[in-house]
Amino acid sequence: MRLATIRRGDGTIAARVDDGGVVAIEGAGDLRALLALPDWRERAAVAGPVLDPASVDYAPLVPSPDKVICVGLNYRAHIAETGREAPRFPTLFAKFRSALIGARDDIALAAGIEQLDWEAELAVVIGASVRNVSEADAPRAIAGYSVLNDISARDWQHRTAQWLQGKTFEGSTPVGPWMVTADEFDGSSGAITCVVNGETKQHSDVADLLFGPAALVSYISRIVTLEPGDLIATGTPGGVGAARTPPEFLHDGDVVTVAVEGVGECANTVRRS
Amino acid sequence: MRLATIRRGDGTIAARVDDGGVVAIEGAGDLRALLALPDWRERAAVAGPVLDPASVDYAPLVPSPDKVICVGLNYRAHIAETGREAPRFPTLFAKFRSALIGARDDIALAAGIEQLDWEAELAVVIGASVRNVSEADAPRAIAGYSVLNDISARDWQHRTAQWLQGKTFEGSTPVGPWMVTADEFDGSSGAITCVVNGETKQHSDVADLLFGPAALVSYISRIVTLEPGDLIATGTPGGVGAARTPPEFLHDGDVVTVAVEGVGECANTVRRS
Repeated sequence: MRLATIRRGDGTIAARVDDGGVVAIEGAGDLRALLALPDWRERAAVAGPVLDPASVDYAPLVPSPDKVICVGLNYRAHIAETGREAPRFPTLFAKFRSALIGARDDIALAAGIEQLDWEAELAVVIGASVRNVSEADAPRAIAGYSVLNDISARDWQHRTAQWLQGKTFEGSTPVGPWMVTADEFDGSSGAITCVVNGETKQHSDVADLLFGPAALVSYISRIVTLEPGDLIATGTPGGVGAARTPPEFLHDGDVVTVAVEGVGECANTVRRS
Repeated sequence: MRLATIRRGDGTIAARVDDGGVVAIEGAGDLRALLALPDWRERAAVAGPVLDPASVDYAPLVPSPDKVICVGLNYRAHIAETGREAPRFPTLFAKFRSALIGARDDIALAAGIEQLDWEAELAVVIGASVRNVSEADAPRAIAGYSVLNDISARDWQHRTAQWLQGKTFEGSTPVGPWMVTADEFDGSSGAITCVVNGETKQHSDVADLLFGPAALVSYISRIVTLEPGDLIATGTPGGVGAARTPPEFLHDGDVVTVAVEGVGECANTVRRS
């Protein structure tokens, strides 16, 4: 089952994305509100009229999550090529919810950013409230998986030792278009790619994650309660613009597509804001 | 005027803390909801019955802010004593809302933390929605000031290069008990202290801040829209436990009091959770 949040009128609503079209899930609110209901799987499966495809406008997968937790340095091959040893603990940082945009929205290139970069990532969507959950029990807290582009203003990210300011520019982080429920995609493998203006820049497999989804959920749950709708961006493989020779960055009009095989893709145009 | 959020029944409500007692501000919700109203100053000033002092239970100043933005390395004397040059840009990191506790609540010392430390900080409370605001105009976005103890699990903070995981343990960060409106306290000076079990550990003045409140509001607003109820923790002066010889950390039963002269104080007991 593929579940999304779509824009309707002044608000948003959860929806199921079937092969035959998109079906609104009435009465539940957005995907975060839906996932907060114990019977969300049953509610999401109900029949309903297929929406006019022209009216389907993807919001951020979860427009207003309680938390967006991001992971750095998490692909083994990428860690090895930087010459680092494999870390014992996941590197965690945050984004604010206002960074999030929909899977077809424009990426805002704010005034003052010179080095906007891409980062294709697998996103974990939380579907239950958990604290101090073991790695063995962690999968029950995972509702599904999505795709996120952890767009990074490298010049701001490296102004200081803490990355937040380069990671949370408003309207910069595509996530969606939908999540695939964990019974259909288990997060253990699948090609992950980033294509900029038709040219492949990143190509790896989520099987290469050092800390996989269950390990991340367990680790983070020792610090905070994970809540339905929380997003974990699991990190990016090699091939980011800043690490290329010469470095490459995104400019007004560039089209960036990040995809995870078996999940979906975000395709966004960069626009000076 | 001193404004707070207090617990009542299953919820919370905004309140005004007068010399004669605490007055509930009916119909507005908590302090975040109150500050989102354009006429919050008038609404906050209304007369009302004084609550029974025994019933006053301070919630986190803003229980569920859109953002908690923290600043590192921001006291000039402290930067100088570390041998560093003054940074050109503020170091920013985040906390999640679930870290916040009230000014008299117990600080949760979670399993797995060995090095819990204190950080007395002046907190800025945002009272208007602003983006790309100049430093000259930034004061109009500041509703007032409060006190925050940026409790830090040093062992977790330094597991990786990113501090988040040591900074956002659930139920660890006192903020409150109230905010003093900016017309009565302008954030430019006032002694800031931390006392642990009766012994003074930090003693400085907020006048020593390298990036003051208006500079921080302006800088952060280039990245994200600041919203009513957002909190900015402005950084801590020298004297933290980890930097002492030998290092000192907090243990079950310790009482930590952080205060800013002219604003208020948070006094909390550490409890193994």
